[in-house]
Amino acid sequence: MTNQVHSVDDVAARAEAAARPFADLEPRTRAQALVDLADAIDASAAELIVTAMRETGLGEARLQGEVRRTSNQLRLFAEVVVEGAYLDARIDEADPQYVIGPRPDVRRVLQPLGPVLNFAASNFPFAFSVAGGDTAAALAAGCPVIVKASPGHPELSVQTADIVVGSLTASGMPDGVFQLVSGQELGTALLRDARIRAASFTGSTRVGRMLAEIAATRDIPIPFFGELGSVNPAYATRGAVEREPQLISGFLTSVAGSAGQLCTKPGFLFVPAEAELGDLAGRLGLPDEHRLLNPVIGGAFADRRAQVLDASGVTVHLEGSVREGERGQWFATPTVVEVTTEVLARTEMLLDECFGPLSILVRYRDTAELAPLHRRLFPGNLTSTLHATDAELDSGEWTALITELAATSGRVLFSGWPTGVSVTSAMQHGGPFPATTTDATSVGTAAIGRFLRAVAYQDAPAAVLPMPLRDDNPWNIPQRRSAAGLSQDWGRLDGRY
Amino acid sequence: MTNQVHSVDDVAARAEAAARPFADLEPRTRAQALVDLADAIDASAAELIVTAMRETGLGEARLQGEVRRTSNQLRLFAEVVVEGAYLDARIDEADPQYVIGPRPDVRRVLQPLGPVLNFAASNFPFAFSVAGGDTAAALAAGCPVIVKASPGHPELSVQTADIVVGSLTASGMPDGVFQLVSGQELGTALLRDARIRAASFTGSTRVGRMLAEIAATRDIPIPFFGELGSVNPAYATRGAVEREPQLISGFLTSVAGSAGQLCTKPGFLFVPAEAELGDLAGRLGLPDEHRLLNPVIGGAFADRRAQVLDASGVTVHLEGSVREGERGQWFATPTVVEVTTEVLARTEMLLDECFGPLSILVRYRDTAELAPLHRRLFPGNLTSTLHATDAELDSGEWTALITELAATSGRVLFSGWPTGVSVTSAMQHGGPFPATTTDATSVGTAAIGRFLRAVAYQDAPAAVLPMPLRDDNPWNIPQRRSAAGLSQDWGRLDGRY
Repeated sequence: MTNQVHSVDDVAARAEAAARPFADLEPRTRAQALVDLADAIDASAAELIVTAMRETGLGEARLQGEVRRTSNQLRLFAEVVVEGAYLDARIDEADPQYVIGPRPDVRRVLQPLGPVLNFAASNFPFAFSVAGGDTAAALAAGCPVIVKASPGHPELSVQTADIVVGSLTASGMPDGVFQLVSGQELGTALLRDARIRAASFTGSTRVGRMLAEIAATRDIPIPFFGELGSVNPAYATRGAVEREPQLISGFLTSVAGSAGQLCTKPGFLFVPAEAELGDLAGRLGLPDEHRLLNPVIGGAFADRRAQVLDASGVTVHLEGSVREGERGQWFATPTVVEVTTEVLARTEMLLDECFGPLSILVRYRDTAELAPLHRRLFPGNLTSTLHATDAELDSGEWTALITELAATSGRVLFSGWPTGVSVTSAMQHGGPFPATTTDATSVGTAAIGRFLRAVAYQDAPAAVLPMPLRDDNPWNIPQRRSAAGLSQDWGRLDGRY
Repeated sequence: MTNQVHSVDDVAARAEAAARPFADLEPRTRAQALVDLADAIDASAAELIVTAMRETGLGEARLQGEVRRTSNQLRLFAEVVVEGAYLDARIDEADPQYVIGPRPDVRRVLQPLGPVLNFAASNFPFAFSVAGGDTAAALAAGCPVIVKASPGHPELSVQTADIVVGSLTASGMPDGVFQLVSGQELGTALLRDARIRAASFTGSTRVGRMLAEIAATRDIPIPFFGELGSVNPAYATRGAVEREPQLISGFLTSVAGSAGQLCTKPGFLFVPAEAELGDLAGRLGLPDEHRLLNPVIGGAFADRRAQVLDASGVTVHLEGSVREGERGQWFATPTVVEVTTEVLARTEMLLDECFGPLSILVRYRDTAELAPLHRRLFPGNLTSTLHATDAELDSGEWTALITELAATSGRVLFSGWPTGVSVTSAMQHGGPFPATTTDATSVGTAAIGRFLRAVAYQDAPAAVLPMPLRDDNPWNIPQRRSAAGLSQDWGRLDGRY
């Protein structure tokens, strides 16, 4: 069975038809379907990985980890669905003495938005593709999903979609709850279709921005959650350079992993001007050549690398390599260059994301210059990182920088590296533009919130209330109750909390 | 003291300068400032209401209620700030056995977005204006606020802003945390300014849509929360018409209140074709003439009313009146017309919001036609309402319609009327476009979420963690912890919930 479909109208109509029956399922039924899908993916992992290796050039170990992440992500969302806190159920008891005027019985719960269109990424053929995080979050929310396949792994996309459709069907999910489409034209036409209620995207700033504007200016605008560009600056203090002999090798491993084709690759490492980093290649041992994802990405990386190497004030720390092989495929080893803060501040080209195994060491002299420099150069990132000793952190010397890191990034790491994003309830993978088009996360359980909308029921008889809002709480989910009478105490702030 | 300011750059710079010190305040300090402001507004209520009556034509009792709502809304948000659940603090313990791969310590909390620009409404000179819901929610979130005054009540806006600035200053809030500006040009220039991080708006679909597109297409797009148009359809069953002798008078009171100039005015009431409603004017007694908010709204209402009365298939149920008085002011009494479902379905003009005291009775024959008709005619509303008996609801005959009401509105009411929105933790005042530009609520405590963004801290030493994420929980707020080891049980769904 393939799940290739034909016209915008067919696809949108099938998704719309699936929306109500899918939304109406008991949470445990929907959760079981997610678990079944996780099992199906794991059962086919070996053959999926063979296709993925061939189509993407990514290594087997990395892809095995990615499949494990993808299937367990589905299981994690199944837990979220059954536990039910994500519904944010709120119950206000009727209150004739309410200080704003008599309060009716009001109950509010989050409900699925409707069909979601997900533009898959090229660099995570599992975790950000057909059955990846956006699909898992939308299905968990109770929304039908249409995935626009990445052109980077078309066979794997179909192979995965067949597993998804087969598994969801076997689990009794409604027809049309998942569909795969391909082609930019079909994708943008669907984005304009009134039956699509939200979209997600992982890819370039240019394409993401274009799609975001389509979503915002259609007759009925819809939420668009785009993950675009991020350069993930990292900073190392004097103390960290001294304390961590593995600092630079950890950095290089993070830059080199998956040939640097990760949205969280550290694009910059700020180190003290006088730090002795030694011979990087000698320390690390040069990693083997890694194929780049596709000819477009390979060619763009080669151009960009040449441009960086040619720029005034840039010195080479680890030259690395990039070359074009057969059938337009590109192969690379990591390149690390070095600049001063002055060169960086005056060379705008260096600030753009470089997708591939290249990173920039930045030599700084004065700790105090870093916070304002960061604020100016790095307004929006998925992550930022600080390596520092506890004594340095306690000194307060780094407080201003940490404040800026939190103001400009979705995730702030201490003495680690940003690649290898964990999928957890507290993960935030989204930050100020251009990291994402909104600050919403596309990784972790909070990602489900993107595909929900609130509905309040006022004075509804129990028989018509949705299950999460009933007093007998048949799904046994967390409910926040506001009892009558509390408003009499408002404004006293007298230690009741 | 007036708070009129001069240039886009001045205003944005002051707001930006206030952002960090304001965000850094202890919650109790910020909450106390909100309570102090509530007290200051209550203390000046009498003189504020005199100005409001003169500038808006709204009645004293209505405005007294609105001031009570406005000040208590500030007190409610103070409670929210101190209680701290709105921060959604999540703590994932480090977990070496995590099934996705070793998990670091990850902690996530919501933080203020930064300066918020709030376009005030004309029809609620207190509750949706200078010190209204958007201002309260943004200040509670820890964001500096710039209000673009409504041209409908300029003196009241300045008078209120003076109270706000004076009170916040006396409470020790940072300079620039609140500013008032006026003029459409200055408002849109600020909306384009990079230092403004979010905007809210209550007003017409035309203006709201234009502003939303500016927000979405600026160099760095920002979230825009617009409350635009809503016609709030209501339905009455045969049983409800029989049971509730006060059904029609309740409807007319809701239509007539504040001269129908409310975003939740019921614009349609569907009644059975054969229902005997009698002489509305005789039953209710015609209300006194009510001044309309301003000459523009008055003139537009008169035009629209004439257009409706002239439309083919429209019969007059209660003629009402509208006339132009001195100084361009308009005065009206309620008009109620009647159509069949067939006329309504073929007369698009009738579907647009009519801002003022006019509503449309729609005669239906077949209960089963209502759900598909609603879906087609009313895709996005703040509210929808059903009056039915419990026996009718139990019969299942109304289930399809209720499903559509929930799918197309933010709030579904049973046997009530949508005007008089309560400010509570479960309130939802926002719905599918054009009710709002996103589904976010602008009323109730959930409104604070519009002005927050998530930041995760990975492996952060306790000394640099924000207070809400510390293990010793100095603010005593709710924290959701994910213990290590739980992932071993994922996917079993075995009654652990």
